Amino acid sequence: MKDTTDFLQTGLDTLNDIIPKKLHQQLQFILEMDKLKHVMRRSPLLDQSRTENDAEHSWHVATLALVLAEYAAPDVDIGRVISMLLLHDVVEIDAGDTFLYEESAFADAKEEREQRAAERIYGILPMDTHQRLKALWLEYEKCTSKEAKFAMALDRLQPILHNYFTGGGTWRSHDVTVQQVLSRQHVIEEGSAELGRFTRQLIDDALKKGYLKEA
Amino acid sequence: MKDTTDFLQTGLDTLNDIIPKKLHQQLQFILEMDKLKHVMRRSPLLDQSRTENDAEHSWHVATLALVLAEYAAPDVDIGRVISMLLLHDVVEIDAGDTFLYEESAFADAKEEREQRAAERIYGILPMDTHQRLKALWLEYEKCTSKEAKFAMALDRLQPILHNYFTGGGTWRSHDVTVQQVLSRQHVIEEGSAELGRFTRQLIDDALKKGYLKEA
Repeated sequence: MKDTTDFLQTGLDTLNDIIPKKLHQQLQFILEMDKLKHVMRRSPLLDQSRTENDAEHSWHVATLALVLAEYAAPDVDIGRVISMLLLHDVVEIDAGDTFLYEESAFADAKEEREQRAAERIYGILPMDTHQRLKALWLEYEKCTSKEAKFAMALDRLQPILHNYFTGGGTWRSHDVTVQQVLSRQHVIEEGSAELGRFTRQLIDDALKKGYLKEA
Repeated sequence: MKDTTDFLQTGLDTLNDIIPKKLHQQLQFILEMDKLKHVMRRSPLLDQSRTENDAEHSWHVATLALVLAEYAAPDVDIGRVISMLLLHDVVEIDAGDTFLYEESAFADAKEEREQRAAERIYGILPMDTHQRLKALWLEYEKCTSKEAKFAMALDRLQPILHNYFTGGGTWRSHDVTVQQVLSRQHVIEEGSAELGRFTRQLIDDALKKGYLKEA
């Protein structure tokens, strides 16, 4: 039988007296991050055995940045892009995953929910680590820098790949239309002209193959 | 019923005629990466509901690098550390996860198995991306640079955290002794004196609490 002792709290209590406060706070944050492995997305894995979770997705998009670095604008700092992508969904530990095409009160309150989540989660960290990591997340959210634009493009591209290469994925299961997908496609073009062009080709072919509905 | 059409191969065949060969090869690699989400490790998630997979683990250790950057040696390029950590387990798509304390013919053949896996998997990429990514993996494996040493320290630290904060984890389920853990602990000290000291405190307390056996 599973031992249900709260080993996590016991451990943190013990270490509180032994290790520096700063490291203790960083450790709490690291342990909190484990919860992202339980936040499920809508996108299917390529073998369609299940949907993916936020931790897997975050790893996959960060890896996309490494592989596709050459399609970013000149002088984009790929290290920053990757750092943003590692953190971009952390707020979903509290705020949950919001489906891109959802129209609901839940979707409308996304920003407020994520702001509150960021306060709590990054607030676990000691001040300097807090400021450094939250600044990366805010840069991504505001999407003003070249780095954030490329990161966001990859975050949009990855589920499109999963939908296309599973014969429709969430496009089919959620009755998504080609107009809906095209209306969000500019984010990819703004991050990378070449990947934007590629995505348009994927969408055209998805329509042709019936993975996406016309209207 | 699940549609069992091979949408992945169909998509790659279609795109073969449409997109540049280089991007097509990069795309194949990106799709191949999805398989890392199915490679299961021994370490439990902190809520003990299941063990974690390699994609989740890779994201978590890369995030550790971001949070714990200050404990690296001076002038360590954290971007390179993170890039190595994103890729460090990719060979396990073919080679499988080898438990750190396993003594078997399977464990003995780990290096050869991983070399073969690297040939095939990085070989999917176009030449320049191949060379860039494989060089990062080799740097990690050989563990000669400061960046590789810090990356490897974090790769060792993360499962220790999972074992400690679940009341023993794989230490208990696999009858691991404190001597076995200490014999691998130098890797953490070599990557970071401060994290090495912290790990030793964790191990001491784990022994005290009975999470680890004496001999």
